[in-house]
Amino acid sequence: MVRSSRIKDIQPFHVMALLARAKELEAQGKDIVHMEIGEPDFTTPQPIINAGIEAIRIGNVHYTPALGLPALREAIAAFYKTRYDTEVSSKQVVITPGASGALMLALGVIMQEGDEVLLADPGYPCNRNFVRFLSGKTRSIPVDASSGFQLTLNHLQDNWTEKTTVVMIASPSNPTGTCLARSELLKMAQFVKEKGAYLVVDEIYHGLVYEGDIFTALDGDENIIVINSFSKYFNMTGWRLGWLVAPEALVGDMDKLAQNIFLAAPTPAQYAALAAFNPETIGILESHKQEFKQRRDFLLPALKKLGFKIEVEPQGAFYIYANSESFTKDSYEFAYDLLENIGVAITPGKDFGDYKASNYVRFAYTTSLEQLKEGIKRLNEYL
Amino acid sequence: MVRSSRIKDIQPFHVMALLARAKELEAQGKDIVHMEIGEPDFTTPQPIINAGIEAIRIGNVHYTPALGLPALREAIAAFYKTRYDTEVSSKQVVITPGASGALMLALGVIMQEGDEVLLADPGYPCNRNFVRFLSGKTRSIPVDASSGFQLTLNHLQDNWTEKTTVVMIASPSNPTGTCLARSELLKMAQFVKEKGAYLVVDEIYHGLVYEGDIFTALDGDENIIVINSFSKYFNMTGWRLGWLVAPEALVGDMDKLAQNIFLAAPTPAQYAALAAFNPETIGILESHKQEFKQRRDFLLPALKKLGFKIEVEPQGAFYIYANSESFTKDSYEFAYDLLENIGVAITPGKDFGDYKASNYVRFAYTTSLEQLKEGIKRLNEYL
Repeated sequence: MVRSSRIKDIQPFHVMALLARAKELEAQGKDIVHMEIGEPDFTTPQPIINAGIEAIRIGNVHYTPALGLPALREAIAAFYKTRYDTEVSSKQVVITPGASGALMLALGVIMQEGDEVLLADPGYPCNRNFVRFLSGKTRSIPVDASSGFQLTLNHLQDNWTEKTTVVMIASPSNPTGTCLARSELLKMAQFVKEKGAYLVVDEIYHGLVYEGDIFTALDGDENIIVINSFSKYFNMTGWRLGWLVAPEALVGDMDKLAQNIFLAAPTPAQYAALAAFNPETIGILESHKQEFKQRRDFLLPALKKLGFKIEVEPQGAFYIYANSESFTKDSYEFAYDLLENIGVAITPGKDFGDYKASNYVRFAYTTSLEQLKEGIKRLNEYL
Repeated sequence: MVRSSRIKDIQPFHVMALLARAKELEAQGKDIVHMEIGEPDFTTPQPIINAGIEAIRIGNVHYTPALGLPALREAIAAFYKTRYDTEVSSKQVVITPGASGALMLALGVIMQEGDEVLLADPGYPCNRNFVRFLSGKTRSIPVDASSGFQLTLNHLQDNWTEKTTVVMIASPSNPTGTCLARSELLKMAQFVKEKGAYLVVDEIYHGLVYEGDIFTALDGDENIIVINSFSKYFNMTGWRLGWLVAPEALVGDMDKLAQNIFLAAPTPAQYAALAAFNPETIGILESHKQEFKQRRDFLLPALKKLGFKIEVEPQGAFYIYANSESFTKDSYEFAYDLLENIGVAITPGKDFGDYKASNYVRFAYTTSLEQLKEGIKRLNEYL
């Protein structure tokens, strides 16, 4: 039987197999310290829960407009003003089923079959798979500690071809937790604009930045599309809700595409998210953020002390990208070794690209400080 | 700035502009009879509402596996046994964000760039847009009353090329409400299988069939993918939940693709849907079905009496595809004429394809019998 070649080109997440093995071990009664999972362990804040329940109770379960509930689009626009002092019109805001839906819309509208998309290696693995899914080509640019694991203007200049139409960046980055400097972002935005191309900026870990200035790429130019999500900072993973902010000129096409490919984001989630920006919710989220920071401040020196090299200190997200060369030449094997022998689950570098991937692992601090301490204890005894 | 040509090739739904105009008129105080909307007017049955609320209340709001909650996959497999006496393994069932997510997965896995997909004109407009979105080519086959507005084996034989890899059919069909005969379906399935291709069967209006035998295409062969949804029969539109049933050999690839393109269907919706198959819910849904049937039984003769030609009586869904040639040569203009002059909103044929589209309009009976009577009264006075 026929099978699309796009499927052969799309890599599975190696961590899913590792997670499945971890669950098998748990079923056998083993205790596993989970530092592999890219999902906040906090549950959705109560005001959002209450708003979701109320929406369903009163029957707000029909389709919304494809671009999302007008009130939610307005609340997000207002949030940019409050949080970043950045002016965004609600007409630029598109509500999507998760950041995934936002990436699909953004690439669907701006990227042509065969176009080249520049992105960093290591980086979020779905990005290159989205590009392949829509028959584009990715040009993965190796990045290292010297640029904080981020793309720079030089990278764009060196890798630009006549087929390049999109650059994808993420700040903070998954897996490295590093942020882009504002000056570099603005230089890249300017360059990309001169080329008549687009900059797609993943800001889904915004809100979880522990050091340095907070700014959004929307301070940049009219060729920027920002992707965001209610999953991480807002602790709403399973609700499947995200958004994008795009130049207004693109929104009509996004509306048309959204009508066709997903109709609209889930309605109960949209009503629930109306409670995401109120002071009580933000208070809860900020306390979660403080807890993430505490965990990072414990885990970072502890990993260094064990002999992992942390080449750039993460400023945000809930990840530490650690060089594991002191212990292994094969971080994939190493991850399984730790899982099988001491019940510590981490993600091998391989899930984030090819460049020196076997030298790195990603630790996620999406579990309690107590669990992290237990993990470090086991690593200390074993390594 | 660059813009993908795929966007230029994707048509907007003309009915969305008409709906927007209808809302404008309503805002001006005009009373509109809505017979354009493809969404059941019934709210979600209470047991599903309760299960959704309970899920959120107890914090079932994290990611599920990409293929969906195992319990829901099992419930759907069991439903095929209960309702159709068809054996389906839960391993073949994939939970998706709406039927849209199911179409994306199915085409993503089986259709290669440049492949040809055969489908009926008139038909559900998103289908051809999905194919274009994924860089395939549609071959729209004109169908008319002689085949009940459905594809036949002859159509496939006459239109098959070496690039054909997928055939998409829908039973009941949107916009015509007509069903495929079992014998014709099995002949087509056999032919498509011999060609090493796939048959994708849209069964999202299953459950809403008012006459004749009920059967699922899954009684056919191993090259069949069935698309279904909780939106129509189960009255769960805004929850954004659907499913597909595929040959088990494809499910691994679908898992990989789902992990990348949408992660998982919304979690509260999946827990809510666990209550969709219990006897109390089915009782409510069957009473809704009876109400749809009553509406159809009123609207069908009433439209004929007015002078619309109904060339094939719809057996299912909640649509009547009516020939409007007695009144107009341009059904698009006609739809606006009715909206502006008598406040009756219907969908022009143009939204469902090109073949004789200007001779047809679609009436949806997704509003109360009282409203339908009011609509007929206005049409009777005006036409």
